[in-house]
Amino acid sequence: MGIPDIRICFFGDSYVHGTGDDECLGWAGRLCAGARRAGHDITYYNLGVRRETSTDIARRWLAECEPRLLPATDNHVVFSFGANDVALADGVPRVHEDDTIANLYAMLDNARTRYRTLLVGPPPAADDEHNARLARLSERMRDAAGQLGVPYVATLPALVDDRIWRDEVRDNDGAHPRAAGYARLAGIVAASGAWWFERQ
Amino acid sequence: MGIPDIRICFFGDSYVHGTGDDECLGWAGRLCAGARRAGHDITYYNLGVRRETSTDIARRWLAECEPRLLPATDNHVVFSFGANDVALADGVPRVHEDDTIANLYAMLDNARTRYRTLLVGPPPAADDEHNARLARLSERMRDAAGQLGVPYVATLPALVDDRIWRDEVRDNDGAHPRAAGYARLAGIVAASGAWWFERQ
Repeated sequence: MGIPDIRICFFGDSYVHGTGDDECLGWAGRLCAGARRAGHDITYYNLGVRRETSTDIARRWLAECEPRLLPATDNHVVFSFGANDVALADGVPRVHEDDTIANLYAMLDNARTRYRTLLVGPPPAADDEHNARLARLSERMRDAAGQLGVPYVATLPALVDDRIWRDEVRDNDGAHPRAAGYARLAGIVAASGAWWFERQ
Repeated sequence: MGIPDIRICFFGDSYVHGTGDDECLGWAGRLCAGARRAGHDITYYNLGVRRETSTDIARRWLAECEPRLLPATDNHVVFSFGANDVALADGVPRVHEDDTIANLYAMLDNARTRYRTLLVGPPPAADDEHNARLARLSERMRDAAGQLGVPYVATLPALVDDRIWRDEVRDNDGAHPRAAGYARLAGIVAASGAWWFERQ
């Protein structure tokens, strides 16, 4: 056939998982379904886990890549996290900003030597203070990725005032959208130029 | 709310993964989307991995459950494998039938003490000899699950002569169907009485 046998592992938190989406696709599933419809032979592995911080993801990502990304396949990894890191527990962020950046740096620096790698920034919730912490963290994430030559897709700036995203998050659980919000997020990644496969 | 916070990990091979489905759902995603539409609060973790045998799955399933199935959530595990075990490599099955049953027994015996557990039998391919080996293995899998009190859903008998399944498998890669075949398989599991959540 000559078409590359593309495998993609998506690592992250509940946003990567697609929590709240009754269609069980989230943004990662929509991106891959779109790329398949456009003719790409993509195997989609969603490894987002609810409640996980960058520290949790750092602990498991490589072990979960190994059975899924084979020597003979065309391997890609996408990371997206941050919302659980800045979430407060007993009044302080679950992961200190410096530790998030250290986790990110360690993961991306390892991943980029093995796989084509992409970082997607965390999307906003229905909480202005949370979003302010997340905006600050996102800028540091973008800078760290840039230092490593890993492409970064910002999502917070476009979604924080997006009507569909905001309404679904507010009407759901204050954090996660429903199907239409995830479709918006998939569209942002697809249109970013950093995503590898054009959609339709 | 009072609705249980249900988490399900699906472990298995490319059939569990949904390989060949342009909608990126497979049968597991369709089952969970159906249960969510019926009002169940289900978190769907698809941990099917292409090419894996029961030996491969035995190595990773518990480590992958741990971050996903939490003490406070209502946890379920579904296993489905066998097609790669009976696939021939250098003229012999990749995993001997006795070893498949030993792997199955070890996994189910451990899983059933931790989580609600279900075994789904392997579906047929477009190869009569493969299907004959698979039919024999499936009966032993059903018996072993029965000894452990784990429900088993047969899929091969209903699919081997199913027009949709057969045609999609033949026209695709000889092993995997497309969206409609996976929808048929999801329907068999949903209608089995062993699946926990009614569909629609």
